[in-house]
Amino acid sequence: MKTVRLGIAGLGHVGCGLIDLVERQADLRLPGKVEIVGVSARSRSRNRPVDISGYRWFDDAASLAEDSDVDVFVELMGGSDGPAKFAVEEALKAGKPVVTANKALIAMHGQALEELAQTKGVDLMFEAAVAGGVPIVRVLRDSLTGVAVKRVTGILNGTCNYLTTTMLNTGRSYEDVLEEAQRLGYAEADPTLDVSGMDAAHKAAILASIAFTADLDFDKVSVKGVDTIELVDLSFADRLGLRIKLITEGVLTESGVVCRVAPMAMPIDHPLARIDGALNTVRVEGDPLGAVTLTGPGAGAGPTASAVMGDISKLFSPTARSPFGRAAHHQVRRFVAAEPTERCPFFVRVKLSDRPGALASLTEALALHGVSVDKLLQDSADDNDVSPVAIVTHACSRGEIDAATERLSALETNIGMLQVIPIDAAGKREPGR
Amino acid sequence: MKTVRLGIAGLGHVGCGLIDLVERQADLRLPGKVEIVGVSARSRSRNRPVDISGYRWFDDAASLAEDSDVDVFVELMGGSDGPAKFAVEEALKAGKPVVTANKALIAMHGQALEELAQTKGVDLMFEAAVAGGVPIVRVLRDSLTGVAVKRVTGILNGTCNYLTTTMLNTGRSYEDVLEEAQRLGYAEADPTLDVSGMDAAHKAAILASIAFTADLDFDKVSVKGVDTIELVDLSFADRLGLRIKLITEGVLTESGVVCRVAPMAMPIDHPLARIDGALNTVRVEGDPLGAVTLTGPGAGAGPTASAVMGDISKLFSPTARSPFGRAAHHQVRRFVAAEPTERCPFFVRVKLSDRPGALASLTEALALHGVSVDKLLQDSADDNDVSPVAIVTHACSRGEIDAATERLSALETNIGMLQVIPIDAAGKREPGR
Repeated sequence: MKTVRLGIAGLGHVGCGLIDLVERQADLRLPGKVEIVGVSARSRSRNRPVDISGYRWFDDAASLAEDSDVDVFVELMGGSDGPAKFAVEEALKAGKPVVTANKALIAMHGQALEELAQTKGVDLMFEAAVAGGVPIVRVLRDSLTGVAVKRVTGILNGTCNYLTTTMLNTGRSYEDVLEEAQRLGYAEADPTLDVSGMDAAHKAAILASIAFTADLDFDKVSVKGVDTIELVDLSFADRLGLRIKLITEGVLTESGVVCRVAPMAMPIDHPLARIDGALNTVRVEGDPLGAVTLTGPGAGAGPTASAVMGDISKLFSPTARSPFGRAAHHQVRRFVAAEPTERCPFFVRVKLSDRPGALASLTEALALHGVSVDKLLQDSADDNDVSPVAIVTHACSRGEIDAATERLSALETNIGMLQVIPIDAAGKREPGR
Repeated sequence: MKTVRLGIAGLGHVGCGLIDLVERQADLRLPGKVEIVGVSARSRSRNRPVDISGYRWFDDAASLAEDSDVDVFVELMGGSDGPAKFAVEEALKAGKPVVTANKALIAMHGQALEELAQTKGVDLMFEAAVAGGVPIVRVLRDSLTGVAVKRVTGILNGTCNYLTTTMLNTGRSYEDVLEEAQRLGYAEADPTLDVSGMDAAHKAAILASIAFTADLDFDKVSVKGVDTIELVDLSFADRLGLRIKLITEGVLTESGVVCRVAPMAMPIDHPLARIDGALNTVRVEGDPLGAVTLTGPGAGAGPTASAVMGDISKLFSPTARSPFGRAAHHQVRRFVAAEPTERCPFFVRVKLSDRPGALASLTEALALHGVSVDKLLQDSADDNDVSPVAIVTHACSRGEIDAATERLSALETNIGMLQVIPIDAAGKREPGR
């Protein structure tokens, strides 16, 4: 199909994020056009960040799923049973692919739904159910097929990771930080699903089932949350060189797949120990790969909606996919050379001969071209009377720094080549026109 | 097709790694069977870690590509022109999908080869060409289609990253560390392609072309390597709170796609600053995603061969893929509960009432169950005469620690709940039976 027509059930943060994304799809790299033919939610009149008046309204998600205009049913209602499960079953029975972000549904009933989808020969996709914007489901399922996976570990609940990170960093109690997180919208009014470890367990079970081609048996997953963690645990662990985080684990043992969620301690140089705040991360270890780690936003309307859209994009007619992912309707962009107007700070290192006025002539040369100094470090001269100097400049253009360094190169006091390296201040750099 | 029959051209590290992986494919999650029907390389008699005598030999890669028994041509010869390019073209012309790890070929001629592949309606896949075992090509092309990408940054040359990391950590010169890297096989005898930044530039251009649906114009890529970096640059940057690394960047500007490779400095808390040694990493920033980062082994026979195999696995007949990636022939594994025999160190925190013998009764209780203490930290008692104690144990079983903590809980001197958290010492944990 050239156009995919969606029925979207559930208009919370993610549902509204998806509608917004469909409306701005020209910026994306979809193989065709995505349309919304109908929407459904508990309340039609609730105040929402997107205007839904242009879409057909369905009081009942299952009716939307079965509607003849709907090509793909998108389930964003949540809940492992009840209307979400029923509507997904109706869609699959009607021979329609389903895209869902519902981790509880997939963890509890994914296997039965898989059988139904396979019987009907349609897709059931749930990239958004695990780790939000981090594309770990497809990476495990489709990319790492050439890896014999041994272990999948992760930080899959941003709320828990935010709580433990913030407790340690601010020295505040669990109750105090949780209350603040609820006020800021980082934690639910009823945080039980998150802090008990259950939400992370749903995600961990899904990943373990894919990684090890294992029957998903959620009853076997052992689950412990962060709700018993005290500040003293985190701070004492820190003083012993350890970080405590809520870790998910799926591991292949001789007797089967062990899947669990529990607070774990690890040395501060462990790859998972540095993942702070609300980030999610998944580490896949296997043979002959070694380990690959994916990190990113594990929740939020935008990241989760983009994952749903990534699944939807797989439902266009299977023509041989362009090697670079291009479609005929995509805007073709050009490579261009970098422009000298782009501004950023620079690291400049020179070697000066150790004599009076050397440093003054250096700073003058910079000032003459409008390059101002943020930091400067000079060491004592070495045995050859050469004194290395490093400068961190304030943001300037490539043209300005090039002119300044040309002058520096010509200084009598300059010994040999100097080094000019742009500084990426993680987003602080202003792009050129 | 249920069976995919390969012709493999190029039997260096990666080619031999792929043969090894094909021979142990039962451990992988392939949708069908992979066979090798023929191989080709410069020398038939060269000493190799795998036995190739069972496979048909072709002196000429192009003849292998055209052979009627070959379903998929796998090009692992390298080089942007010459026999690799000719053989790939012959395979595509013959209507055969091509899987390649050749970054130079794709960066220089990918666009023309794409047209040829599209004309013939076959796949051209190159996951292994960028970042080895890190599945960034498919993530960008197929998973992040719902993201308007703004910027792709990365560390894509493990040799360069090893050099700068090792120089800073050991205080040795560029020449010294390079020579050692060559001796250890981390750098080529002729390291020019790596240290000049050219290899990273090939990879960066491929990623930028996919991320921005941009025509791949390698002439516009600006390339600077690490060959002018001195130890003083790295150490002065370090003292100024900065790390210098060879960074690749593709960024969407109003005038087009700017792609470049250059040493860049960044604050030590920058996500790329912590990527040390021979690791590769790619960070994709976009809307409404935020940023996702993938990190893993960027080279090596195993990781690269597993990426090639991941591409091959996509060439089986397109039936609706199982939601969990299962195939009928896959061994079905079971979820099982964790076994108490598994051994690891534990973090134990108790709160003792501050009176004589409290600590002694604690350590005795542990010893009684065979749990020995690695580290212990006790703080002064608080106003309520409660003294928190944290212990890091040597590795013991879950059963042992549970028995010990049961005894601790019953101690008169113990105040309230204690905390028992397993320590993941990054691989040091021994799995249970």
